Amino acid sequence: MSVIWNDLFSERALRMKSSAIRELLKLTEHPDFISFAGGLPAPEVFPVEAIERATVTIMREHGAQALQYGLTEGYTPLRELIAARLNHEGMKVSTENIMITTGSQQALDLLGKIFINHDDYILTESPTYLGALQAWNSYQAAYLTVSTDDDGMITDELEQLLQKHPKFIYALPNYQNPGGFTMSGERRLELARLSAKYNLPIVEDDPYGELRYEGEPLPTLLSLSAAYYPPSDSYTGNVIRLCTFSKILAPGLRLGWVVAAPEVIFKLAQAKQGADLHTSSLNQFLAYELLQSGFLDEHIHLIRQTYTERRNVMLQSLQEFFPLEVRWTKPKGGMFLWVTLPNGMDSSELLKTAIERKVAFVPGRSFFPNGGGENTMRLNFSNSTPQKIREGIRLLGELLKEHISQPTPAVVS
Amino acid sequence: MSVIWNDLFSERALRMKSSAIRELLKLTEHPDFISFAGGLPAPEVFPVEAIERATVTIMREHGAQALQYGLTEGYTPLRELIAARLNHEGMKVSTENIMITTGSQQALDLLGKIFINHDDYILTESPTYLGALQAWNSYQAAYLTVSTDDDGMITDELEQLLQKHPKFIYALPNYQNPGGFTMSGERRLELARLSAKYNLPIVEDDPYGELRYEGEPLPTLLSLSAAYYPPSDSYTGNVIRLCTFSKILAPGLRLGWVVAAPEVIFKLAQAKQGADLHTSSLNQFLAYELLQSGFLDEHIHLIRQTYTERRNVMLQSLQEFFPLEVRWTKPKGGMFLWVTLPNGMDSSELLKTAIERKVAFVPGRSFFPNGGGENTMRLNFSNSTPQKIREGIRLLGELLKEHISQPTPAVVS
Repeated sequence: MSVIWNDLFSERALRMKSSAIRELLKLTEHPDFISFAGGLPAPEVFPVEAIERATVTIMREHGAQALQYGLTEGYTPLRELIAARLNHEGMKVSTENIMITTGSQQALDLLGKIFINHDDYILTESPTYLGALQAWNSYQAAYLTVSTDDDGMITDELEQLLQKHPKFIYALPNYQNPGGFTMSGERRLELARLSAKYNLPIVEDDPYGELRYEGEPLPTLLSLSAAYYPPSDSYTGNVIRLCTFSKILAPGLRLGWVVAAPEVIFKLAQAKQGADLHTSSLNQFLAYELLQSGFLDEHIHLIRQTYTERRNVMLQSLQEFFPLEVRWTKPKGGMFLWVTLPNGMDSSELLKTAIERKVAFVPGRSFFPNGGGENTMRLNFSNSTPQKIREGIRLLGELLKEHISQPTPAVVS
Repeated sequence: MSVIWNDLFSERALRMKSSAIRELLKLTEHPDFISFAGGLPAPEVFPVEAIERATVTIMREHGAQALQYGLTEGYTPLRELIAARLNHEGMKVSTENIMITTGSQQALDLLGKIFINHDDYILTESPTYLGALQAWNSYQAAYLTVSTDDDGMITDELEQLLQKHPKFIYALPNYQNPGGFTMSGERRLELARLSAKYNLPIVEDDPYGELRYEGEPLPTLLSLSAAYYPPSDSYTGNVIRLCTFSKILAPGLRLGWVVAAPEVIFKLAQAKQGADLHTSSLNQFLAYELLQSGFLDEHIHLIRQTYTERRNVMLQSLQEFFPLEVRWTKPKGGMFLWVTLPNGMDSSELLKTAIERKVAFVPGRSFFPNGGGENTMRLNFSNSTPQKIREGIRLLGELLKEHISQPTPAVVS
């Protein structure tokens, strides 16, 4: 007789669920599928040769150090370089404000670990990033949600929600995943003001900030918050900013970083020590090499160019093929746009037919922490070629037109 | 005014402590220090050139895939290779039994996440691996401890402890960290029998199994447990076995793997998805390349040779320089040996003087989950050259002789 594992798993483990969507999407990995479902960068823009060259340099110059255990907080020269770049933008940041993480996902998990007690509230946008919910569900968080529109989080709703004392506010200000919208400058100011007024941390998750295809960059919440705290050589404010090399270098390296007050970095490092000791030394050396040499700053132009074209093709195709009753966001950057179907339509139902026709998307429902969004879907435009984007949107458009023209069957009672 | 972070941190975060030892040991990073404190492999045996060559091959043949997001469970060919090697040793294991982790430390953390509710008991050896305690303390575990001797965990003590229903038994059967001892074949059999009788999982942590310097390998707990379960194409038993590439390839890559029943792997993968999505694709491709080509099997000979010499020099030096009142283990493998000082001596006090003389070790106390071990210390022999080992043990021997010859000062009452 063997162990009955479910009798032994923890409460939090029994709450973990595999998404039914994830299972469906395994079907979409075949090459004849057109998938707008994943959140993958275009492999065509991975800097394969630069990584090969950098590895050779690293192995010859720092081989032993790049293969040895490293500091939990991260490779010091990389942390210094990140701090220097922020200071160059006018911030006052020191190495003590920076920790390297095993992708941004790890930062989300460690934030859950150091902040969330059972049933603590986290305030999120609605919809919001699914990976954050997955990380925080395992610490048994509860959610307060603030609505969004084309200018991002509707900050007018915040003050009332703050009466319920959430542990922190989770915001994705740039080209939000999944919504594709960008928080306006005014709302950023208002969010920073409220955070200071209520002494409440903001987790600013900004994986796509560098992937801007039009307009000027808006100030980060990190920079806006600095106005509320006395000048110092380190950042001492309320914002915990999450960044990643996944979208500007390569996600397979699992490299992200956190910028926060030294007390937060210190506690995150204690938690990280138990979680994975430290992030891959070799991969940190790679990021350092490619950032320090200026390669990455050049490389971002290529990524922007590629994704700008793909976004434009998707927007044009939506205009051409989608029925008039359907609305979508026009993202200024990032990798996703967000589609709203007429009320009463269920995008999960639609996905079943779409998969039969070999095209896929993510139904929007899972991005809503407290339910809703049945008539929404997320479309990724970074991972498909322009030809596939046009063909896939045409197929989806046909499907939508069929569904919208069919009246909902009356229930026979 | 800024956030008072301690008012916001979770209960588990407030329990996280930085070790005072860790702070002390920062001093020992200077090159003129002789440190037996860390648990670092010898950088002289890192396969720097092989990793350079393998990276070039990977970038040219699979560049895009090695830089892209991957499956949470790990790179399938690497999992298949690990399963095939176990099957070659006579196990019945499938890919479903294997998950790749970001170092073994992540496996410990994820096991805490999926098994431990507040105040659940975990049964550990005493002393035991500090990293496991760090991981599980953050899930607010309590500990039952079983004593150890030169043959490892004293299994006669187990049956009584099992009445308190621990969630699992944590065992380090080979060249234990910190103790340096190896669990005997008889005790392995007895532990496997009790685990089956009580339907209780064993976490078998075996980072050093390949680093054997004398004698024949003993059967793993995983293989012994298989006898208790019906034959199947997958492993369905109670043992959760943790292995790592850190000691046979390089720790800086942060690569480990778990072998366990499919239900456990499934739940671990759910937890890992929230923790870091997946382990670095590039590093998994590297491990696959070096394992599949046979390089690693050859390379292990070099590591064994280097560490055998270092262990022998440390044992000879201890014999020559340490006072008669002091005892130590004679490890048949691994990276550590364990020293017991006369009762009443405090190795933490001794460390302060040792550091003044530029030699360091880890006081044993922190390896005891429920206290004790003040008169013990752990010595690492893998990371210092033979010359430094001899000189460091000579210095420690002098120091010990001074302390032992001083009678403890009487308390004036």
